[in-house]
Amino acid sequence: MAEQGSGPVVRTVLQQCLRARLQVKPAEENQEAQFVQIDRGMVVYICFFKGATEHILPKLVSTLLNLRLCESTSGPVVSVSELPGSLLLVPQATLGGRARGRTMQYHSNISKEDGLRLYAAFVSLCEQQLLAAAARTGVQVSVQHGTYGNRQVLQLDTNGPYTHLMEF
Amino acid sequence: MAEQGSGPVVRTVLQQCLRARLQVKPAEENQEAQFVQIDRGMVVYICFFKGATEHILPKLVSTLLNLRLCESTSGPVVSVSELPGSLLLVPQATLGGRARGRTMQYHSNISKEDGLRLYAAFVSLCEQQLLAAAARTGVQVSVQHGTYGNRQVLQLDTNGPYTHLMEF
Repeated sequence: MAEQGSGPVVRTVLQQCLRARLQVKPAEENQEAQFVQIDRGMVVYICFFKGATEHILPKLVSTLLNLRLCESTSGPVVSVSELPGSLLLVPQATLGGRARGRTMQYHSNISKEDGLRLYAAFVSLCEQQLLAAAARTGVQVSVQHGTYGNRQVLQLDTNGPYTHLMEF
Repeated sequence: MAEQGSGPVVRTVLQQCLRARLQVKPAEENQEAQFVQIDRGMVVYICFFKGATEHILPKLVSTLLNLRLCESTSGPVVSVSELPGSLLLVPQATLGGRARGRTMQYHSNISKEDGLRLYAAFVSLCEQQLLAAAARTGVQVSVQHGTYGNRQVLQLDTNGPYTHLMEF
């Protein structure tokens, strides 16, 4: 989906899950760690590159929510909106890495400030669109997400992750 | 790492894990499902494209085993060979998908016969090289792998997957 002649501005890795659980706040003195969790649905690992702007978000979210990536109980492959399933969004700057010798470099990644802003808008658009689609089915789903810039402590339980790469 | 002017012939997605468990044989009548498991180490999802041959394997395996992708307890990032950690190899044909409209197509993927042969050689080379590297440290590690062409029922427990994409 990346435009011809230029590199992608967003890289995503998509995995199907039966259940996924992500730490959103590490344990502190006198306070246990906090987690978010989804059941059946899709985990989206996302990394923004330099040059990414808000303009990419409608196409990005529409594609992720409407691509037929999920097994349905009735047989055909359907989108996460059609399933309907939940979403777990995981900011993953490491996806922007390029090997130089034995070391990974992340020079193409967006700045932390711009990335945080885009990530927040991405989460918000996913919430709007998935919840609107699911409302039509009457099934309860949710959009959960990790905290930008933090360690993403993740537990994943799948019936086959069906890992896909999508670049924009 | 892909050669200039031509697309990649191998796509891998790499995730760090504390523990990962993969079904290698589904349950049958009178027989429970069979699983393989690793503790601390790296999960390698791999997809071969048309045009991939055995020639790519030494560079592929050497890169995966020696890239510095793993947190060490002492601080610096080290390779899975240096950690040393275990490997779970997961054949993942879905990684070769390209979106056409809302549907994923897998026309660039290698044929099943060639893929099976390359995958077996890949597993074997990972075993040789990781076990040789780990023998020097005296630490017990293992190389586990999924069954080519089967559903990859996976459970993953991470302290941060640090997802990387590497193409060759």
